[in-house]
Amino acid sequence: MTVSRGFASDNASGVHSDILAAIADANPGHVHAYGDDPWTRRAEGLFRREFGPDVHVFFVFNGTGANVTALQALMRTYEYAICPATAHIYQDECGAPERFTGGKLSPVKTPDGKLTPALIEGSIEGVGFEHHSQPRVVSITQSSEYGTVYARDELALIAEAAAKHELRLHVDGARLANAAASLGCSLAEACAGADAVSFGGTKNGALCAEAVVFLDPGLAEGFKYIRKQSAQLASKMRYIAAQFVALLEDGLWLRNAAHANEMAALLAREASKVAGLRITQPTQANEVFAVLPHDAIAPLKAEFDFYMWDEAADEVRWVTSWDTTEEDVADFVDGIARAVGNA
Amino acid sequence: MTVSRGFASDNASGVHSDILAAIADANPGHVHAYGDDPWTRRAEGLFRREFGPDVHVFFVFNGTGANVTALQALMRTYEYAICPATAHIYQDECGAPERFTGGKLSPVKTPDGKLTPALIEGSIEGVGFEHHSQPRVVSITQSSEYGTVYARDELALIAEAAAKHELRLHVDGARLANAAASLGCSLAEACAGADAVSFGGTKNGALCAEAVVFLDPGLAEGFKYIRKQSAQLASKMRYIAAQFVALLEDGLWLRNAAHANEMAALLAREASKVAGLRITQPTQANEVFAVLPHDAIAPLKAEFDFYMWDEAADEVRWVTSWDTTEEDVADFVDGIARAVGNA
Amino acid sequence: MTVSRGFASDNASGVHSDILAAIADANPGHVHAYGDDPWTRRAEGLFRREFGPDVHVFFVFNGTGANVTALQALMRTYEYAICPATAHIYQDECGAPERFTGGKLSPVKTPDGKLTPALIEGSIEGVGFEHHSQPRVVSITQSSEYGTVYARDELALIAEAAAKHELRLHVDGARLANAAASLGCSLAEACAGADAVSFGGTKNGALCAEAVVFLDPGLAEGFKYIRKQSAQLASKMRYIAAQFVALLEDGLWLRNAAHANEMAALLAREASKVAGLRITQPTQANEVFAVLPHDAIAPLKAEFDFYMWDEAADEVRWVTSWDTTEEDVADFVDGIARAVGNA
Amino acid sequence: MTVSRGFASDNASGVHSDILAAIADANPGHVHAYGDDPWTRRAEGLFRREFGPDVHVFFVFNGTGANVTALQALMRTYEYAICPATAHIYQDECGAPERFTGGKLSPVKTPDGKLTPALIEGSIEGVGFEHHSQPRVVSITQSSEYGTVYARDELALIAEAAAKHELRLHVDGARLANAAASLGCSLAEACAGADAVSFGGTKNGALCAEAVVFLDPGLAEGFKYIRKQSAQLASKMRYIAAQFVALLEDGLWLRNAAHANEMAALLAREASKVAGLRITQPTQANEVFAVLPHDAIAPLKAEFDFYMWDEAADEVRWVTSWDTTEEDVADFVDGIARAVGNA
Repeated sequence: MTVSRGFASDNASGVHSDILAAIADANPGHVHAYGDDPWTRRAEGLFRREFGPDVHVFFVFNGTGANVTALQALMRTYEYAICPATAHIYQDECGAPERFTGGKLSPVKTPDGKLTPALIEGSIEGVGFEHHSQPRVVSITQSSEYGTVYARDELALIAEAAAKHELRLHVDGARLANAAASLGCSLAEACAGADAVSFGGTKNGALCAEAVVFLDPGLAEGFKYIRKQSAQLASKMRYIAAQFVALLEDGLWLRNAAHANEMAALLAREASKVAGLRITQPTQANEVFAVLPHDAIAPLKAEFDFYMWDEAADEVRWVTSWDTTEEDVADFVDGIARAVGNA
Repeated sequence: MTVSRGFASDNASGVHSDILAAIADANPGHVHAYGDDPWTRRAEGLFRREFGPDVHVFFVFNGTGANVTALQALMRTYEYAICPATAHIYQDECGAPERFTGGKLSPVKTPDGKLTPALIEGSIEGVGFEHHSQPRVVSITQSSEYGTVYARDELALIAEAAAKHELRLHVDGARLANAAASLGCSLAEACAGADAVSFGGTKNGALCAEAVVFLDPGLAEGFKYIRKQSAQLASKMRYIAAQFVALLEDGLWLRNAAHANEMAALLAREASKVAGLRITQPTQANEVFAVLPHDAIAPLKAEFDFYMWDEAADEVRWVTSWDTTEEDVADFVDGIARAVGNA
Repeated sequence: MTVSRGFASDNASGVHSDILAAIADANPGHVHAYGDDPWTRRAEGLFRREFGPDVHVFFVFNGTGANVTALQALMRTYEYAICPATAHIYQDECGAPERFTGGKLSPVKTPDGKLTPALIEGSIEGVGFEHHSQPRVVSITQSSEYGTVYARDELALIAEAAAKHELRLHVDGARLANAAASLGCSLAEACAGADAVSFGGTKNGALCAEAVVFLDPGLAEGFKYIRKQSAQLASKMRYIAAQFVALLEDGLWLRNAAHANEMAALLAREASKVAGLRITQPTQANEVFAVLPHDAIAPLKAEFDFYMWDEAADEVRWVTSWDTTEEDVADFVDGIARAVGNA
Repeated sequence: MTVSRGFASDNASGVHSDILAAIADANPGHVHAYGDDPWTRRAEGLFRREFGPDVHVFFVFNGTGANVTALQALMRTYEYAICPATAHIYQDECGAPERFTGGKLSPVKTPDGKLTPALIEGSIEGVGFEHHSQPRVVSITQSSEYGTVYARDELALIAEAAAKHELRLHVDGARLANAAASLGCSLAEACAGADAVSFGGTKNGALCAEAVVFLDPGLAEGFKYIRKQSAQLASKMRYIAAQFVALLEDGLWLRNAAHANEMAALLAREASKVAGLRITQPTQANEVFAVLPHDAIAPLKAEFDFYMWDEAADEVRWVTSWDTTEEDVADFVDGIARAVGNA
């Protein structure tokens, strides 16, 4: 009843066996609902270990839930968040961020899915002018929707620009693990300077586990009500917490992310050898973007699962996952070569 | 690391082993995310089997998520929903229904958590008067927050009253299974006449599985966008679907609910023998409400887990679950007798 | 094309000639739009004179606009405001306060439209409990929807109770002038202890002039954006400001309010002499509430304009205005006597 | 206490004497509040005369109020409106449209403030894809924020494109009168094909008078509640209605708009003779856009009132009004010549 492993998305993959085991471990007996339980305490402790002793962490159901609750804590209805035009919050959440915050998003065109201080400063408009929504948040995605990664010095410059203009920095870290693996740094370093992070477990091998991490703990005030009112408070919280325990306790997050990144690097390396195919973005995390001959796309899609990124440009997106194998990649590259060769 | 089985809530209990097994079964390989997968298809089919061939069903994360998305489909911002003052949507969701719908709730005092046609009609105000929010929805909870159950003829009268006044009927069915088990009827019969139902799996032995069922399929138009915009669309949907497959495929929902109900009946029967204790509501599902001597409460809470319902009245709530045992009940009744005896 | 002066509402009356004159005076030439003009400066100065040197004032279009913008400044989406069940914000604004704030209102039954410390404290629920909306605001109406007035010591006790529970105090002062006239005190004294006031000019003889006054100036931070985003910023602001100049500069507000109050007192005094009629509320401002014989109501309404207050109780509401004359009252009392006599 | 007539905006000008007279005429006696009065009936009749016998019209306070209530009637929370990036609703309403509708705006870059079928079609994205907000509305401004006017055939093509893609057409007609005067057509013709129009009186010589006109009357269902809940229902409605009576009854709207347009044409013609100044947009209504030598701007602003449009480009906006005189224009052109000559 399942399709084989493809390259559609890292949420098409299943759950790592260690995470399923952790869920089963958490199962016996009764515990208090809504997070007043030992698994939640333990997972919270692991977040403090990873992100810093003063952070506040709140578990939620999904990435959109993390983003919209975090943004509610960061901005008011008459404020706006600057983000890349490719940001998940702008493109892929059906208007949820605007709906939940009551505010606006200001999308910025970028070549590679990444903001820069200059792009941020170019998006600051109407400060103090009551007719215009006020800038309050910068939201970046690490690793980005283009599979690119902010280097640590790039992050530092963004944080500096945000601070200079009294903007808060939100990091959509649905794939923060992939960024940290790519940078060879800690999770905290991969989002250094952020005020709040949407941290993703689901794409990294979990079943359903996302978190909002407040690196500025003052911003967490009242957040438990925001989470509840936003319908993001799980009753059987222990099962979300257990997934994070499995991911964080002994480095599963890093093994999963590093493996996915390696498979993407392998895919990019091998695919780029196919004549007529062009890799369009640096492969820094677990996503590969490529332009194919138009007539190669349909046959390739008939055999393998992946998404078009830009129909007009014949650009496709290939995503690797924690469970992608070298054989999966080899088969896929063979398929690509065949499809391109026949096109 | 867990507390023993108490009587705090049916979401303090764990996950039934068949449901954990179904999650594991759903795990191998890749499937499309967001519900375009065989497990979701199968679970949807089971909902059509239970609720009728034309219903539309959408899976969400939690009960509040089910309620707020369903209500968005049923009412506009300038409309209101009539509900018991004890309704979860009014008392226990931190204002989420008002926030998501933009509308109002009109709470009605009831003796037993149940609306009646007369109570509904008494809450219809300001029709056609632009200064007043307009009545559009009746929301009832089956079984109710007081552990009472609408009989099938009571339901029919409510549906009739709603139709007469052009009100839509929403059923918060977080414990619909307990109601059906209590009534000895099907799930569909336990909410007959509803336009939309929030159907709960979590309190009935699941990990995280709730659904919005549109019995009037016309109301489902656009609902997929409402679900996404409300941050209630799971990426790895197969795992929610698999839980419903396990619950619905061969009657696990009924076995779990019937067992919980029996344990509540046993508890009510035995506890009522304790002199000085008064059961305050008919025990028709899996909840027992009792008034205890004031001085008995603290000692009992020191030993067993449960919630105060009404501090001023010394009224407590005891909830049984799918995994409550006769021995749990016997131990608890012993404890109650001791506490009351010493009080 | 107009109906004669009736007793329907103080917004059925026209505009005082001094206010029309002020509008004409403000007309020549160009001024900056949106409040950056000399009339607005002058009106703001008059508000500081009346309410205190540190208050911040913002002009808006109507009473609902004043209430919903003020409440946005006072509460967050997960908070609630305690108000009488008869409050305009609860009964007569089509759900606008909930919609604009995203929060809840908690209505309290009162005998006379007035909250008390005990009623406020009885409405504080679920503090710190994330499932429950949090208490943040007390909203009272001065004078109340029942034409009653909070005495100055009653106000002080309410302010004290609010402060004790860290609640902010909002005063819906659509008829604050009538309250001050009734109490023989200043406008500031009539709402002493409030954090924010919705101050009404329209019912007091203006054309369209309401204001939000922040007695706690810290709460005004960001309010200019709230006003604009709530569509309550007038472009030709000078004409709203000019109305307030006319009302406040030399006591027109007091003359208008005192006159309306006197006419209500006269009406209550004379009407109470009619056998079979009962005045149901103390007549402390410009509204009279009475119970009439059922069969007297329709004939009386055929001759004079007024509203039913409570159909079931045969209770009516009669409102006097700045332009009500003694003759109007005498004619109306004659009509009442006739209708009741014939009933 | 006033500044002399400048070129800042048509809402810097005062109120036409006929409109002040109409307000005074409407003043005597009592009428029902909230629009149940003869002046409102009469103004509604005039709108039906101008826009068609089946239109529904609702009066509101200001342009933002008209836009946000109209858009609520046209779209749901998960939908978006396509508009020029220069649209007032996108740039100048502090996020009010997003806040009131819960939906998104999709801004489109244009050379002249005007959408085209191609621009509209290029903004239709993600149809049927639940992750993406759905296209539902096209909003155009007639005359545009650049002082340009959609020709009647351009309008027809836009209406056709909107219909083809099942999009509703909203016209922000804050300056619809100027467009009709420019086109030499009726108000109805100047917005032909629209489903709903925000019709402005304030910039055309009124004090505070805007209207939402539903050309598709089915869209007006429930709108009276939307208006009230959005705090846009005036209590003393007769005074808004009277302004529209004065504007529409005998063509004052056209005389005012035509005069403002003529003054803009004169200003553009004369200013374009100044060497070193470039008119950047066709002057089709009552706004002139020009690029000046950088060093001319500050001296000119020291003498005359107007706004910068684009700081980076040294582009300014000059707006004429119903009360601008030929002498005002001549003085201003002299000032421009001086400032540019000295720069």
